[in-house]
Amino acid sequence: MFKSILVAVDGSEGSKKAVEYGAQLQQMSEGELLLLTVFRHHSLLEASMSMVRPSDPQTLDDAMRDHAKEVVNEAKGWAREAGATNFRAFVKGGQPARTIVKFGAEHGADLIIVGSRGIGDLEGFLLGSVSHKVTSLARCPVLVV
Amino acid sequence: MFKSILVAVDGSEGSKKAVEYGAQLQQMSEGELLLLTVFRHHSLLEASMSMVRPSDPQTLDDAMRDHAKEVVNEAKGWAREAGATNFRAFVKGGQPARTIVKFGAEHGADLIIVGSRGIGDLEGFLLGSVSHKVTSLARCPVLVV
Repeated sequence: MFKSILVAVDGSEGSKKAVEYGAQLQQMSEGELLLLTVFRHHSLLEASMSMVRPSDPQTLDDAMRDHAKEVVNEAKGWAREAGATNFRAFVKGGQPARTIVKFGAEHGADLIIVGSRGIGDLEGFLLGSVSHKVTSLARCPVLVV
Repeated sequence: MFKSILVAVDGSEGSKKAVEYGAQLQQMSEGELLLLTVFRHHSLLEASMSMVRPSDPQTLDDAMRDHAKEVVNEAKGWAREAGATNFRAFVKGGQPARTIVKFGAEHGADLIIVGSRGIGDLEGFLLGSVSHKVTSLARCPVLVV
């Protein structure tokens, strides 16, 4: 029933569960699993941590991207272990919820899976969690695990 | 993968979609589909519509319950049309999100499905939607359609 399942991962325990549900649904549907990790660009990170002003913003962006690549590679391992047969991994920079929803729309995802609590728990407490924002913005069903 | 799927229905277009997804997942999983409509007790309704003070609260509760029965019976029709093979319908009084989550826990639901926008849209706008509250409170995965 779901032909293109997007799982957003941030390395948290919740996102491991998200990948496992995604892998099961992918096998049942014989669809495709897309794993996405979103990293914040320097300007966004700086806005949310106003005391940070590194001398070389580019280096920080690169470090964030490298970390995101590690996170999504770990998720590929989880997907493989959970028996997913058709999956690809992506890394994008931007505001998490908006980037997840936009990526899903661009790739024709008919289901987005997110953990109920991710790494950004404090921010979620203050501003509303990424999972809430994704369910509000997405045009397709969203599974919160 | 989901052995007991709880679908919350309130008669909105979103809850029809929720029943259809529930019916498909029920067939794939060969599990059980539970359809639940929650009606507000008079005291809660009165609290949310402070000008209402009917002469006979009991009559109002009965009317709300009767309406909820009609809503859930309509949902049974949707489930049947969508090919669900194993489903039951329930009506409960109480605060919507808490009642949905409590009912799910009591019945061992391993998935709750809700529409992203239900009948109580205005309240959702002011206080946070039922779907957001359910995803926050539930101990099992929640599919928002």
